[in-house]
Amino acid sequence: MQVEILNTGTELLLGTTQNTHGGWLGAALRNLGVRVARQVTVADGEPVMEAIKEGVERADILIVTGGLGPTSDDLTREAVAEAMGIELIEDEHALRVIEAFFQKIGKEMAPSNRKQALIPCGAEVLPNPNGTAPGVYVPPRLGKGAPCAVFLLPGPPRELYPMYHAEVPHRVRALADIGESHTMVEMKFTGIGESDFHESLDSRLQAIRGLEVGYCARPSEVDLRLIGEAEVVEEARQLVAEVFPDEMISDDGRSLEKVVVDLLTEKGLLIATAESCTGGAIASRLTDVAGASEVFTHGFVSYSNAAKSQLLGVDEAALEAHGAVSEVVAKAMAEGALQQSGADIAVAVTGIAGPGGGSEEKPVGTVWIGLAVRGREVAAVRAFYPKDRATFKLMVEQRALDMVRKVLVRF
Amino acid sequence: MQVEILNTGTELLLGTTQNTHGGWLGAALRNLGVRVARQVTVADGEPVMEAIKEGVERADILIVTGGLGPTSDDLTREAVAEAMGIELIEDEHALRVIEAFFQKIGKEMAPSNRKQALIPCGAEVLPNPNGTAPGVYVPPRLGKGAPCAVFLLPGPPRELYPMYHAEVPHRVRALADIGESHTMVEMKFTGIGESDFHESLDSRLQAIRGLEVGYCARPSEVDLRLIGEAEVVEEARQLVAEVFPDEMISDDGRSLEKVVVDLLTEKGLLIATAESCTGGAIASRLTDVAGASEVFTHGFVSYSNAAKSQLLGVDEAALEAHGAVSEVVAKAMAEGALQQSGADIAVAVTGIAGPGGGSEEKPVGTVWIGLAVRGREVAAVRAFYPKDRATFKLMVEQRALDMVRKVLVRF
Repeated sequence: MQVEILNTGTELLLGTTQNTHGGWLGAALRNLGVRVARQVTVADGEPVMEAIKEGVERADILIVTGGLGPTSDDLTREAVAEAMGIELIEDEHALRVIEAFFQKIGKEMAPSNRKQALIPCGAEVLPNPNGTAPGVYVPPRLGKGAPCAVFLLPGPPRELYPMYHAEVPHRVRALADIGESHTMVEMKFTGIGESDFHESLDSRLQAIRGLEVGYCARPSEVDLRLIGEAEVVEEARQLVAEVFPDEMISDDGRSLEKVVVDLLTEKGLLIATAESCTGGAIASRLTDVAGASEVFTHGFVSYSNAAKSQLLGVDEAALEAHGAVSEVVAKAMAEGALQQSGADIAVAVTGIAGPGGGSEEKPVGTVWIGLAVRGREVAAVRAFYPKDRATFKLMVEQRALDMVRKVLVRF
Repeated sequence: MQVEILNTGTELLLGTTQNTHGGWLGAALRNLGVRVARQVTVADGEPVMEAIKEGVERADILIVTGGLGPTSDDLTREAVAEAMGIELIEDEHALRVIEAFFQKIGKEMAPSNRKQALIPCGAEVLPNPNGTAPGVYVPPRLGKGAPCAVFLLPGPPRELYPMYHAEVPHRVRALADIGESHTMVEMKFTGIGESDFHESLDSRLQAIRGLEVGYCARPSEVDLRLIGEAEVVEEARQLVAEVFPDEMISDDGRSLEKVVVDLLTEKGLLIATAESCTGGAIASRLTDVAGASEVFTHGFVSYSNAAKSQLLGVDEAALEAHGAVSEVVAKAMAEGALQQSGADIAVAVTGIAGPGGGSEEKPVGTVWIGLAVRGREVAAVRAFYPKDRATFKLMVEQRALDMVRKVLVRF
């Protein structure tokens, strides 16, 4: 079963947009038990035609992303029709769905959007609830020549991911004749690196027959994927959970912020945030979770010293004496957030994201994280993440949210 | 001049490692004035051979990364020699350099490393100061068959990047006979969709000779790339800027938040944020920009009604009478943020991100955005983004930041 991915988009070859679709689809298909043999990226327009012609000759399943938009360089539909010798016709139902989409968002449909309803005759239209471009599934043997099955999926991630999940796995499973008991568990960890897994677990995991293991390391997070038959995966899951019980964020793919919001909800607690160097990112991540309003009411972004005093009651003398990035100030921020908001838990961060603002004593990457819990002593930890600005923010967010998670687990 | 990139590595297709080399090389080559026509990823081993055979047939320049290591699945050298009909011989100098590398790091050279000194006869050895695997440059017409020039570069980024910079640009420039005037401009827009460009501009841009145009559409943002000789690109840039002057965020690739921070800095103004449904994401984006502390001091995440009253002084009766998602409350939040922070401009958002919380009168996706400018009347607009939670947040952020941008441009 030769599976190939074709990503179309000039921006991917220019390097202005990172091609994450190739890796994402590779991981998603591997979770189904299918391996990608080749991934190709070509520019919009004519090169798409050539690449599709080659792909359908070589592959059993070809998954194409992008090029379904309304503009003149969106040629994927045309290319697949020509490459496979299938006529392109306007699909009435698809056209109506596109018109309805524009009605819903209160805009008039441009004439150019009409071409998005062109579908290779006999192919299936894959609904796109998040955009105007429907996807297309060309089953094997519909076209002339090679019997390749082709998926045409939209390029924008917000359209691609839901459409993939809704339309692709069951069809690929049927094409590849994969059983249903094949499963995947995603476990998330923070506070340890990928090499900790290699040292403590790799040999024991390798001893489990029929198990496939994959790692994905991000800043301050390692995602571990266990793939195989259900009982094999369960055996591995238990083993891993025993070795790293404290570092485990979730064993069901939930994000750290989702776990925190779920724990707060379960225990009926309110949280508040006081952020300097993360600039609101912790609050934003908490509110990414649907239902966050049940557990989160107040967030403070106290970016200046004045704001720390004014919003959180941090003592001006303490700011003067210890500096904004200090244990005293982190604790005072957390305590102030707790008092001001009436929440049960408050987390505060104050650090130096850089590139400017560092000193010998407190270099760029230094951060203090404070944690206040109603009725308990306020705590604070110092950490050091000498990274670029974006990575620093992310690592501080992870550490702060994980401190909250650890307190909540034992609450 | 057809330039292709071949990235080898099983981990890239499994999705466990993101393929960043493709985009990085694409960007680096674009800066030279060369465009990559195709990027291919294949697994280690046999597929490398097939891909190299195809690549040298089709391309004028083929750049291969990875597969130069000492293990059995590192087959790039062998593949290129066989594909191009060139004998592989042990290069004495390369072998000595590898031996010296091991001496330097105080390790004994494993016998398997000896194969890293195998070089296609007549090819140039590219020194690798950061690892054991030397790179290889096969000049055009050295091999039998197609006259393709081939670069073999190591996979690890800390070896690849320095070797690329030292060995590739001058050779590519000579091969492609490139003038220095080839350029690329990236323009960003919000408030219009990709189809608006199609309707208003495509035919006029297509009439400009030697111009290449690419679009990339994200939620509430369209990026337009213009590529060609400098004066052609400038002609197109002016045309586009004239057609969509208000919608243009930048014509130099700067993000919306960067433009806003730059405008604030330039005009010496302070901004404050008051966020409900975006939960701190606007503040976080502003503080993603280095130097944001010069223009941003206070951010309020008033997620509950109580927080809106307490932090921003929103009248409880107004909240009761009009609801949190209303013109009155959006304006009061903006005004409150302005007063509390002492800033010159304040932006406030209050909306229904969903999935819950909607009503017939105010369905999920409804948002009010308020804007207060010191000494002026407070304004507010209603918008409607019936999307998933994450897209809704992003579109509200874009709209709010763009309202700020528009005020600042005319300040």
